[in-house]
Amino acid sequence: MDELKVFGCNASKEFTKEVCDCLGVHLGESEAFKFDNDNTFVKILETVRGDDVFVIQSSCPPVDENFMELLITIDALKRASAKRITAILPYYPYARSDKKDQPRVSITSKLVADLLTAAGANRILTSDLHATQILGFFNIPADQLIFADLLANYFKEKNFEDLVVVATDAGSSKKAYKYAKRLDAPIAMLDKRRLGNSQETLIENIVGDVTGKTCVIFDDEIDRGSSIMNAVRVLEDYNVKEIYAACSHGVLSGPAVERIKNSSIKELVITNTVPLPPEKQIDKIKVLTVAPIFAEAIKRIHEGHSMGEMFY
Amino acid sequence: MDELKVFGCNASKEFTKEVCDCLGVHLGESEAFKFDNDNTFVKILETVRGDDVFVIQSSCPPVDENFMELLITIDALKRASAKRITAILPYYPYARSDKKDQPRVSITSKLVADLLTAAGANRILTSDLHATQILGFFNIPADQLIFADLLANYFKEKNFEDLVVVATDAGSSKKAYKYAKRLDAPIAMLDKRRLGNSQETLIENIVGDVTGKTCVIFDDEIDRGSSIMNAVRVLEDYNVKEIYAACSHGVLSGPAVERIKNSSIKELVITNTVPLPPEKQIDKIKVLTVAPIFAEAIKRIHEGHSMGEMFY
Amino acid sequence: MDELKVFGCNASKEFTKEVCDCLGVHLGESEAFKFDNDNTFVKILETVRGDDVFVIQSSCPPVDENFMELLITIDALKRASAKRITAILPYYPYARSDKKDQPRVSITSKLVADLLTAAGANRILTSDLHATQILGFFNIPADQLIFADLLANYFKEKNFEDLVVVATDAGSSKKAYKYAKRLDAPIAMLDKRRLGNSQETLIENIVGDVTGKTCVIFDDEIDRGSSIMNAVRVLEDYNVKEIYAACSHGVLSGPAVERIKNSSIKELVITNTVPLPPEKQIDKIKVLTVAPIFAEAIKRIHEGHSMGEMFY
Amino acid sequence: MDELKVFGCNASKEFTKEVCDCLGVHLGESEAFKFDNDNTFVKILETVRGDDVFVIQSSCPPVDENFMELLITIDALKRASAKRITAILPYYPYARSDKKDQPRVSITSKLVADLLTAAGANRILTSDLHATQILGFFNIPADQLIFADLLANYFKEKNFEDLVVVATDAGSSKKAYKYAKRLDAPIAMLDKRRLGNSQETLIENIVGDVTGKTCVIFDDEIDRGSSIMNAVRVLEDYNVKEIYAACSHGVLSGPAVERIKNSSIKELVITNTVPLPPEKQIDKIKVLTVAPIFAEAIKRIHEGHSMGEMFY
Amino acid sequence: MDELKVFGCNASKEFTKEVCDCLGVHLGESEAFKFDNDNTFVKILETVRGDDVFVIQSSCPPVDENFMELLITIDALKRASAKRITAILPYYPYARSDKKDQPRVSITSKLVADLLTAAGANRILTSDLHATQILGFFNIPADQLIFADLLANYFKEKNFEDLVVVATDAGSSKKAYKYAKRLDAPIAMLDKRRLGNSQETLIENIVGDVTGKTCVIFDDEIDRGSSIMNAVRVLEDYNVKEIYAACSHGVLSGPAVERIKNSSIKELVITNTVPLPPEKQIDKIKVLTVAPIFAEAIKRIHEGHSMGEMFY
Amino acid sequence: MDELKVFGCNASKEFTKEVCDCLGVHLGESEAFKFDNDNTFVKILETVRGDDVFVIQSSCPPVDENFMELLITIDALKRASAKRITAILPYYPYARSDKKDQPRVSITSKLVADLLTAAGANRILTSDLHATQILGFFNIPADQLIFADLLANYFKEKNFEDLVVVATDAGSSKKAYKYAKRLDAPIAMLDKRRLGNSQETLIENIVGDVTGKTCVIFDDEIDRGSSIMNAVRVLEDYNVKEIYAACSHGVLSGPAVERIKNSSIKELVITNTVPLPPEKQIDKIKVLTVAPIFAEAIKRIHEGHSMGEMFY
Repeated sequence: MDELKVFGCNASKEFTKEVCDCLGVHLGESEAFKFDNDNTFVKILETVRGDDVFVIQSSCPPVDENFMELLITIDALKRASAKRITAILPYYPYARSDKKDQPRVSITSKLVADLLTAAGANRILTSDLHATQILGFFNIPADQLIFADLLANYFKEKNFEDLVVVATDAGSSKKAYKYAKRLDAPIAMLDKRRLGNSQETLIENIVGDVTGKTCVIFDDEIDRGSSIMNAVRVLEDYNVKEIYAACSHGVLSGPAVERIKNSSIKELVITNTVPLPPEKQIDKIKVLTVAPIFAEAIKRIHEGHSMGEMFY
Repeated sequence: MDELKVFGCNASKEFTKEVCDCLGVHLGESEAFKFDNDNTFVKILETVRGDDVFVIQSSCPPVDENFMELLITIDALKRASAKRITAILPYYPYARSDKKDQPRVSITSKLVADLLTAAGANRILTSDLHATQILGFFNIPADQLIFADLLANYFKEKNFEDLVVVATDAGSSKKAYKYAKRLDAPIAMLDKRRLGNSQETLIENIVGDVTGKTCVIFDDEIDRGSSIMNAVRVLEDYNVKEIYAACSHGVLSGPAVERIKNSSIKELVITNTVPLPPEKQIDKIKVLTVAPIFAEAIKRIHEGHSMGEMFY
Repeated sequence: MDELKVFGCNASKEFTKEVCDCLGVHLGESEAFKFDNDNTFVKILETVRGDDVFVIQSSCPPVDENFMELLITIDALKRASAKRITAILPYYPYARSDKKDQPRVSITSKLVADLLTAAGANRILTSDLHATQILGFFNIPADQLIFADLLANYFKEKNFEDLVVVATDAGSSKKAYKYAKRLDAPIAMLDKRRLGNSQETLIENIVGDVTGKTCVIFDDEIDRGSSIMNAVRVLEDYNVKEIYAACSHGVLSGPAVERIKNSSIKELVITNTVPLPPEKQIDKIKVLTVAPIFAEAIKRIHEGHSMGEMFY
Repeated sequence: MDELKVFGCNASKEFTKEVCDCLGVHLGESEAFKFDNDNTFVKILETVRGDDVFVIQSSCPPVDENFMELLITIDALKRASAKRITAILPYYPYARSDKKDQPRVSITSKLVADLLTAAGANRILTSDLHATQILGFFNIPADQLIFADLLANYFKEKNFEDLVVVATDAGSSKKAYKYAKRLDAPIAMLDKRRLGNSQETLIENIVGDVTGKTCVIFDDEIDRGSSIMNAVRVLEDYNVKEIYAACSHGVLSGPAVERIKNSSIKELVITNTVPLPPEKQIDKIKVLTVAPIFAEAIKRIHEGHSMGEMFY
Repeated sequence: MDELKVFGCNASKEFTKEVCDCLGVHLGESEAFKFDNDNTFVKILETVRGDDVFVIQSSCPPVDENFMELLITIDALKRASAKRITAILPYYPYARSDKKDQPRVSITSKLVADLLTAAGANRILTSDLHATQILGFFNIPADQLIFADLLANYFKEKNFEDLVVVATDAGSSKKAYKYAKRLDAPIAMLDKRRLGNSQETLIENIVGDVTGKTCVIFDDEIDRGSSIMNAVRVLEDYNVKEIYAACSHGVLSGPAVERIKNSSIKELVITNTVPLPPEKQIDKIKVLTVAPIFAEAIKRIHEGHSMGEMFY
Repeated sequence: MDELKVFGCNASKEFTKEVCDCLGVHLGESEAFKFDNDNTFVKILETVRGDDVFVIQSSCPPVDENFMELLITIDALKRASAKRITAILPYYPYARSDKKDQPRVSITSKLVADLLTAAGANRILTSDLHATQILGFFNIPADQLIFADLLANYFKEKNFEDLVVVATDAGSSKKAYKYAKRLDAPIAMLDKRRLGNSQETLIENIVGDVTGKTCVIFDDEIDRGSSIMNAVRVLEDYNVKEIYAACSHGVLSGPAVERIKNSSIKELVITNTVPLPPEKQIDKIKVLTVAPIFAEAIKRIHEGHSMGEMFY
């Protein structure tokens, strides 16, 4: 009883395998497929009665299918009498829908929290949330792993002497600041707005000093890459030396990879919280694995050791 | 305050429009689309504060996307202070995953009930469930509309004198029996199994008398059409006169329409709980609209009138 | 801590004793009696602090008293700090009130599930439910033991060569089918209805071939025995060879035993989920004990071993 | 919508009829009976959709059957979409099991509160509780009606000049004190205990002055009448003038009526919260009706008027 | 994992230290202070992941600050993944607001129970409650320690031969009776009321015999000491020999200590559930420590041993 | 029934009176005071049965007392059968403890949300939250009023031509940006950190152009004023023209008022969400009333009109 078991849902099978290798445990046997009416069917293929179970599913497209598969898996584990179920969402679904900033919209990341709890999750582990407050959406214990050191260290080793950390807008300057502190670098940010009553003139400035500097743009996720490409374009006007970019969650949907390939970005650094299919793997994109970090976290949760230093 | 408002999610927009026309109300304004990271965004475009709101979404493919869109819409309506939210699911998602009949699987139709409740639905209206017990999965009021009269009457009007109602297996003979009673017709059922220890010999019999008769196969849903095609094949061996088929939910996925087209089935009767795209509309498939039935139910719920005779 | 303790409520004291003997543990000491105002008082007479507690109560008459005694016992165990409380209901109360099939009635088997949960049960074990969906009425882990093998094997050993399994109506043909498969026997079912508008003429047929055969009628429970007697009477018209009957839960209320005694039924096989008082024990009624099955299930739950093969 | 409807369960049908007469509404149509397996079946026979429903059931024997019938009725009303369900329990079940005053017992009156809430009651109305704290066992609004004025006034009108209010033990002296204040009378109480280490000598004193006085013993309920008979016996030793008794809930089980009949008690005054069957109606027992008080409370709850002065 | 850890909030730091010494464990490291905006900040300074945690906070002034600090500490422990959190409230906050005895007031001791549960407490330990029913306000296991033996034994050792136990009013005579039994002493009580319609004449009697006797007044808590001073004054009129007083919770607010000092009370005996600051420690007030009793209770809860004999 | 009633707790009595005047309703009668043992007692002095009740309490010191008074008031209103209870917290308690950004701390603003819900609040209205995500901590409808227009318009009317909006750190630059957009002004922010391994050298820069400009520092709350004073000091080094400051919640604790008085700040603009006692009212501090905004919101909530434009 109380054995450690780790299962991976379909979108994170490979990542889960890597985590299991780090832990020295076998990948839990389970299957998930679709019936003729597009209903997902999940079956756990080994006993979990009384076990300490971890199940991993990231939120890459198709987002809703992947999320429902996770919920169904949790329900199956609960009804199979797992002792504790920790849902691991390396990239949290609907993380950006975290507040009601216009009338009659959903706070979907809170809904996601309630759905996970309703399905039967006993605790949550995620990473590099768009907003840390999302942890407070849960009444069950919820933790996030932070990759700031991992990403910052990658650039530290390059020993740039004239580094500036650039935020893509005022909203992300707080996060940029965390990287800047780790890199002992100044920060700058893009200030974009329409001036006057006309709303016609678009003004885009860099607040802070970037001319002739090596710039690293930090963001928490890159989807189609629109905002990062915009930042690159403005930075180019300031005659910066070189442009790097980094983010935790490389969704890289639609034209994103092509855009990066054709841009003046020297290198984009991401993690493997979202699986990057082979056709999207190009030289310019460096993928850092976070599987050992998740493995360490699982180990500490299972054994009841302090995780304080992993989260902040 | 307390106004009646009816919204339709993307998979049931057209059906909802038809319901609204029956009710003489406008289709509630809302939008739902996908962000670059495949996250769905929903916005209600008119006030619902203090209103009695109904939102319709059927469970056709992509099932999980449609279901999540419904949950997000309910959350948006709840946070917009709707007075009461009735979720209408003409075809209930995961209705066939209604029991734990093998180890370590989910009772997903119960999970669906819990998720709807967690999202904030105050009551549920669905129709012709695979198992009526699903209503008991809810602690909020939940009702199902029954189309037995609608479907039976369609065949009554044909005045067949030698009608036999055929169940596709023992499990569905209870439902077939309901139709048989309405049609004053005898029933028969397919008995299919493997005999002996070898499990090699497949035996398929019709229990009951069908030779030379007009047969109507009733089922609650048809997906790829495999089990109905099987029944047709066995019936053909018994030299029946003609074969009809009827079901509430015509999912008709994959090769289903083609199979029906090429079969000896004279006519398949379904309802529009699941939208049938134009390319699947063939002469052999008769679609009966249930929009007036849903409209009547909404009217009674909104006005507080008895619905007893609509449900059983 | 975490010791296994098994308690029996008043209606199942003897059965619990038998289960404890199989397990090699003592019967937990407790008492339950009535105050002058007919209020039940329960006291647990040994410590359960931190223990893994199982409490058994079947649903025989007086059903409500027995059920309330179970709820009060669960509350007492909870407040005495039992670590886990598994409520075992060999015969589930109100199992037949499992759906809303007419207006303004209760889904009482769902209510029973909610009351057990409200009282503090942590998991449920029951057996041979009228409808498997009842397991989905619970959010806590709930399992049912299945006696199909036990009952089928009893008849297998009789080596009948011309066996037919008979369902008492269309609704129970699914269950009959499960037995038929285990016995490699064909099935038949009673088709009973009133024909035409007059509703006066009662038609009772057997669908399927039974003439000259050995028939076994399977049902999940027998109360006053009305429907089984009806099936016997119709079968007699078909000149069957011999009639046997079997069911999981032998409630056998009112005239049931007398009826069976005087009928052409050769033997009725039941289990001891419902205690059969001595005055009802007649030669024609064979009682198979399920205590070893429950004991095995308790052992596996307590030790955290897989139970998959016991449930399906 | 929002109509007032009042239903009575089987144990309080007559009382409910009386309440309905006071209110000028018809008694809600419903039926409750037992199936062959002793399972209760309840059906509401008129629509309650959107209505403001009150359902009355007192806790007389058989206590558990009556209570389960109430829970099932509430469930049926909830699923029939009543707008608000107020459960009225004139005599609250298990009121004396209100605290854990010995190891491993249930706080059953709290359990009763949780079960009522789980079944779907929206508010509770009861009367003269054994302990007022029971109202705090509910998270839904719960009120109790108080009959102190009704009972005290009955004695006031007798204009006794030498009245003493007597408590049957220290525990009930607080309640006795409330009556004493209303009657401008001194109080006395029975002090009963075993002295010394031997536990053999029983000492029974009256603390306070009763000799030659007219005594009224007040209690909240009388079951078999043991404690009141004991008080009478001790009072007789003190040469009191006359002995009266009064209580809210006259359960009067077993030998109670016979005991009162043969005692020196001049008159026992009770209310009709518990129905008194004809064979127990004797001249010495005066029954005061509380139906008008309940009717007034229902009226105020339905119309939203202040009830403050009715409760304290 | 599953280690025993004991933390003390600010109001009970010293008491917790004493408890830890009895247990032979170190006082858990934590800090709690106020931000500039008067918001309390709590940090647990050692890992509690998987531990069995007890946190102690008594309800002395400032009551609300102390209570919120406890709730915040529980939340911090929960989010730090403590396995079980037992909140220990030696003196329960708002214990006297335990019923709704006038219109439109709160049952605050029930609210306190709900808040503790909402914050994440898994079980509760308190002592000598104003009303034992408060334990029923919790759905989590809740126990109270009883100091009746401790206090009674203190007086037993004085070997008074003419002891009378005096209740300060009818409401507290039940508790006084418990002490009287332990001391083999008779009881008396103060009967205070205004007579007649005028409400002008205040009558204060002692019911029972006290003249020339040694009196011990027992109460559950003493705040400003008004009611005990009143009792003393009336007792003096009866020419009693000596007056002692005892209570579990010595709040002793405002003029209480000064009043006792200047009164004819020979000695007041209290416990240390409420910390008594040095300036309030006078010779006349004897403080009995209950730390060993709490330590023993913690030990038994942690180890899963029976606590029955400690609670009643 | 369904009448609008507005109550004010002690910390917001005056503000509530102002809101009531705007609404043209009387201030609901209630009282709250402390018992001798520092327990707060609340009584609602007029009927609220069936009414639509709003209760206002801001979070100024003593924060915990004020918050508990609010919770107790909500409980009293709930038990007095208010139809709907909207808790209005103009300044939300513990708003800054909104995430777990270090090990073993509480997310107290989530705890506050759970406590409000547990007490019985049906909806929440607050204003200018430190983080909008806090609204997602609630499952009940929760809205925040935004004072950005009110504060920005005050400065717009001054017609500064060289205005720069200054954020006090990277974390608050997103909010500053909202004001900058409304004022068509550029933004700047303070970048403060310790450089290198030594952590000894403190570097404070202004990122962005402020020299010779009129600066307005925006923040959401000012407590002791430390961070705003720091910003002023650094701005002075940049030879700015004039310095203004604005915030929604002027807590102004300890030396804050004195500091502002003696600083180079020309004017500080705050709102009256936190009451400013007379001794803190100085010429330099301009208080804008938000009572009309709250009154308008209450009116719309009560009447069920759209509030969309008030929140964003």
